[in-house]
Amino acid sequence: MTRGVSPGTGEFGHGAAFIYNSAVAAWAICAAWEVGALEELNTSRKLDSDEFALRHGLDRLSTLGMFRALASVEVVRRHDTTVIVTDLFDEVYRNKSFFHWLSRGSAELFRQMPSVLAEENRVGDYYRRDAAAIAFACREISAVCYDPTFWAAMDRIGTGFEVVADLGCGSGGRVMDVLRRYPGTRGIGVDIAEPSLLVARQEAADAGLAGRTEFLRADVLDLQPRPEYAEVEVLTCFMMGHDFWPKENCVATLRRLRELFPAVRRFLLGDATRTVGIPDTELPVFTLGFELGHDLMGTFMPTLEDWHSVFDQSGWDLLRTNRIEMAVGEVIFELG
Amino acid sequence: MTRGVSPGTGEFGHGAAFIYNSAVAAWAICAAWEVGALEELNTSRKLDSDEFALRHGLDRLSTLGMFRALASVEVVRRHDTTVIVTDLFDEVYRNKSFFHWLSRGSAELFRQMPSVLAEENRVGDYYRRDAAAIAFACREISAVCYDPTFWAAMDRIGTGFEVVADLGCGSGGRVMDVLRRYPGTRGIGVDIAEPSLLVARQEAADAGLAGRTEFLRADVLDLQPRPEYAEVEVLTCFMMGHDFWPKENCVATLRRLRELFPAVRRFLLGDATRTVGIPDTELPVFTLGFELGHDLMGTFMPTLEDWHSVFDQSGWDLLRTNRIEMAVGEVIFELG
Repeated sequence: MTRGVSPGTGEFGHGAAFIYNSAVAAWAICAAWEVGALEELNTSRKLDSDEFALRHGLDRLSTLGMFRALASVEVVRRHDTTVIVTDLFDEVYRNKSFFHWLSRGSAELFRQMPSVLAEENRVGDYYRRDAAAIAFACREISAVCYDPTFWAAMDRIGTGFEVVADLGCGSGGRVMDVLRRYPGTRGIGVDIAEPSLLVARQEAADAGLAGRTEFLRADVLDLQPRPEYAEVEVLTCFMMGHDFWPKENCVATLRRLRELFPAVRRFLLGDATRTVGIPDTELPVFTLGFELGHDLMGTFMPTLEDWHSVFDQSGWDLLRTNRIEMAVGEVIFELG
Repeated sequence: MTRGVSPGTGEFGHGAAFIYNSAVAAWAICAAWEVGALEELNTSRKLDSDEFALRHGLDRLSTLGMFRALASVEVVRRHDTTVIVTDLFDEVYRNKSFFHWLSRGSAELFRQMPSVLAEENRVGDYYRRDAAAIAFACREISAVCYDPTFWAAMDRIGTGFEVVADLGCGSGGRVMDVLRRYPGTRGIGVDIAEPSLLVARQEAADAGLAGRTEFLRADVLDLQPRPEYAEVEVLTCFMMGHDFWPKENCVATLRRLRELFPAVRRFLLGDATRTVGIPDTELPVFTLGFELGHDLMGTFMPTLEDWHSVFDQSGWDLLRTNRIEMAVGEVIFELG
């Protein structure tokens, strides 16, 4: 006859219910982003759930349930079908891509944690993620985390270069952004995933950049010489540097890149690094999910200190370390 | 250079990071339960992560990451590899089956919310859940939520009955529990899922109850007469009553059960009901996930008032309503 579980009580000010409702809300944040509700709330600060559902062809009850999930953790406030943003909304809106990476892109990895933890299962393709959803999230993560610092680093190179190459280029966004900003330059994108390269070539064609771009399929960790590489003056590589590791491999890969790209004046290497010393209860958005996710996948994630220990053996000079640390120790190294 | 996002700050006392880390922690709660860590912490109040990982054949770093996720929302405290329970641990431990239902059993449904929301997609088998994980969670949910109230209701029937039948019996736990408690009785289990019935028959054999039980495959919503049904004096049905709805169907199903089981003296009907009037920020564990989950699946979920509106047309007398309301309006109706 009594309610056994209640939120907002107890020593910790939240209780199990807040944790539970947050897990539901994390999915609701992803869904609200994809169906356009976060954008509309960001712009209009208010919407009517029924009207929104009707306009977007969504189930009325489920849509109201999605907003109720957001309201349960005060991302919005709800009065019947009226949904109004809170101050917390803006923080969640800024961080939406990190939620998406976790709850849409990586959910199956975390869901299968019991079997993924077991040593005996950690062989072969022992986990699944949603590659398309990860790519969707990473496009915004990249823009939110790295772009301001990236363009500042590009400004320090100045103009006067003709060819840029991006390693692990995905669907080619960075290459095309650079070409748009620096008229007369040409760009090379290298990636192991042919589907991403197909998207890149199509988007380059649509943007009128087909004649200035080349997208090549190759494994950055085992790159073979190509004549095109000899002309590259600016090299970029984002969100894949941790794949160079462990240390011995990282030194070898960096040396190899120095040889394969002899004309490079500046190498901008941006990635997340494993955080050090953050108390468990003060972990910012993304860090916990990103680091546990990579541990579950068995991916080595170097610290900033790990990185600093490899450059002097690598054939590159570290000119500057840009610590971004928006969420999970993001950094851009400027190498010459 | 600044950390853009920090938890524990702002008007709401938690912030986006707490929501994010809670989503990771919800998966960690499920995993910690399945690998035995919750049981060990519940008993010993403390463990060493490395020692635990070694003893259970688990990856050391990932196991530490799992405990770090629990620590991020203060379910435990962590000093290096030492993990110590908090007061919140006990609340989470009691509610672990609800977390499991959500983050292990129903994760794919919630993950696919963007497409599940769209009216045009809501046809056929438009969502997926993990049936085995749901069954694992529901066994404990049933015990935690319903058992004390169920046995009190059984006590009110008294002894003197010979045959009990459970509709939607799953793997037969309730039938066998009743037979153990009431020597000399016989039990019939009815379920639509043959795999569950196979488990039930095996467990009955293992428990020496094969001669006293019969497990029949049938659709409770379209039940056909069988001679065995005429002898049943106590009828039970748990966690499937919402499938009887909408109202017209529910009245018809209840009337049909009255005809098919003419000797029944007492019908104990237990299920969750849709809650009414709980403010969004005070939703207890399970309610939000359960109700949004059923909205996403398009399953009608009656309120207590809805149920009270059908009994007088159904051929059954409502003798007593036991409101349990542990999480999501659980109730057991005693019908005669």
